[in-house]
Amino acid sequence: MASIQDVAKKAKVGVGTVSRVLSGNGYVAEDTKRRVEKAIKALDYTPNELARNLLRNKTNIIGVIVPDIANPFYASLVNEIEKELRKHGYKTMLCNTVGEQTNEKSYLEMLKRNMVDGIITGTHTLDFEAYQDIHCPIVSLDTPPLAQGIPVIMADHTLGGRMAAEALLRCGCKEVVQFRDKNIEQLGKFPYFKRHEEFSRVIKQNGAVCHDYIVEWNDFNLHNYQKVVEECMEEYPHIDGAFGTDSWILCFRKLALMRGKRIPEDIRLVAYDNTDIMNVVYPTVSVVEQPIGEIALTSVDLITRLIGGEQVEESVTLAVTFREGASTQIPEMERSSQ
Amino acid sequence: MASIQDVAKKAKVGVGTVSRVLSGNGYVAEDTKRRVEKAIKALDYTPNELARNLLRNKTNIIGVIVPDIANPFYASLVNEIEKELRKHGYKTMLCNTVGEQTNEKSYLEMLKRNMVDGIITGTHTLDFEAYQDIHCPIVSLDTPPLAQGIPVIMADHTLGGRMAAEALLRCGCKEVVQFRDKNIEQLGKFPYFKRHEEFSRVIKQNGAVCHDYIVEWNDFNLHNYQKVVEECMEEYPHIDGAFGTDSWILCFRKLALMRGKRIPEDIRLVAYDNTDIMNVVYPTVSVVEQPIGEIALTSVDLITRLIGGEQVEESVTLAVTFREGASTQIPEMERSSQ
Repeated sequence: MASIQDVAKKAKVGVGTVSRVLSGNGYVAEDTKRRVEKAIKALDYTPNELARNLLRNKTNIIGVIVPDIANPFYASLVNEIEKELRKHGYKTMLCNTVGEQTNEKSYLEMLKRNMVDGIITGTHTLDFEAYQDIHCPIVSLDTPPLAQGIPVIMADHTLGGRMAAEALLRCGCKEVVQFRDKNIEQLGKFPYFKRHEEFSRVIKQNGAVCHDYIVEWNDFNLHNYQKVVEECMEEYPHIDGAFGTDSWILCFRKLALMRGKRIPEDIRLVAYDNTDIMNVVYPTVSVVEQPIGEIALTSVDLITRLIGGEQVEESVTLAVTFREGASTQIPEMERSSQ
Repeated sequence: MASIQDVAKKAKVGVGTVSRVLSGNGYVAEDTKRRVEKAIKALDYTPNELARNLLRNKTNIIGVIVPDIANPFYASLVNEIEKELRKHGYKTMLCNTVGEQTNEKSYLEMLKRNMVDGIITGTHTLDFEAYQDIHCPIVSLDTPPLAQGIPVIMADHTLGGRMAAEALLRCGCKEVVQFRDKNIEQLGKFPYFKRHEEFSRVIKQNGAVCHDYIVEWNDFNLHNYQKVVEECMEEYPHIDGAFGTDSWILCFRKLALMRGKRIPEDIRLVAYDNTDIMNVVYPTVSVVEQPIGEIALTSVDLITRLIGGEQVEESVTLAVTFREGASTQIPEMERSSQ
């Protein structure tokens, strides 16, 4: 394979001149430039990308950190982000962090070492310290403020929690359960946690009972979810409504149907996210939709602007939408007897 | 920030010596090595990863090319591959190629330019030529042989197609439909296409009718799938069985239920893949399971061995499993009247 030296020799110039032509930095006479380009073509010279990046100090790679790509929410989100980054000439480096705090750190190290030009992080591990001394472009998804200069993109989860509570109350729920993450020290600071606080507040304010069913963050696996939902149903046999992310609610629905419960007559459901899996169930389930496409678009917009040296907004809050399905539509407001 | 020069100065050695300590290549006296390491620590020196990779000619990144990460099959597969690569010290670079042949080429270019150490490719675009002159570690998933030295991993799709056909025949199907990809020039050479050939063969051999419903490969979007399934139902109003990947069959199931059809009394279903979304529907659907975990494990095993300079097998075929659900279980072998 031809080397940069071969090109220089053939074009009768120095290696530094070939470098300048490749990097586009520094002055090279038009005539000389054409001679170098001709030599590159004649020798079929492929510049080593590592060497070229070293010159340009740019990799055109963005690291995308998510807890778990197998979770439909993150699969859709990463898919949209990848497509959008590609339009801007960036490639996507994927990082799953579920249960792997050290893994996240190693990706942040890559940023410090110029392996990626920026990071879009949807971390759930919240190692604030790790983010403090990185003065590189980072955009955060749905986290508390990680450090100064790192913008946060989030959905309007307070509104989402309220919409879900109101939908369940409208069809007469008196005792509901919501599935939420296990309490970690700083959980309350996560934007997405607001949906649980607001849901609980609105349910209780209206004289109904709200149980918080605490679940562990772990590998997305609907089979494991089922065991948890079964335990929940044993513990609270009289619940008439449930709220949680798509996967939890679809699991709940399946188990309820297996036990002969009618939806919505016996149990009403509202899911959160509206990922693609909601499309396969029938009758349909009511859902609060997160704007996944808009989250992806905004994150890529912010990271490219940060890389370009622009100042960007500290946080962006995007609207959620309630989509009514059959799981909260009761013709007559009759409550099933227990 | 400290430079390699600062480290060399502090350790009272040449820059080349620091380089050798960092890369682990070449002889450095133990005493000198300790002095350099002490200087690195004292100065909190972070070697530029690009420079380090240039020395080692290794990036510890594997490119993973899939048609569409939003498709649950690829989401699960990439998730498993990423976890397995991580165990081996590799990071994952993700590439979606749906409808983007040029995109795939640009990833192969990266390989030529030493940006990744190897590629695991589940391409559907089949630009054979692009793979010919790459003499780097590549492992292929479910493709025809791309080039010499590129091993292919596939599931036993012929068995899978037969299992599906036999399940539908067992419960009395007389006219079935299978959803398959649009005919492209070399479709017949794809291992996964064998399931369609075998399915059709077994159905016809047993005196039943088999319609091939040809669909476009496009963005995974269950909403679009629904339109196609509706058209199919209009075209073939008398079908009593259907076969296709999870998403197609779940769409079909939903539309059938919406039209008041009973499953399995009126229509029997067998899905292919058994991704996680199959867990949310009830009553359950029969499915031929692809061994996603094993495919991931094998692909990482082969790529690491190729990178290590080992000879590996030309192709690996993994077993599929039939899991019977309610969609092919008919108490009495009655056929519904049409």
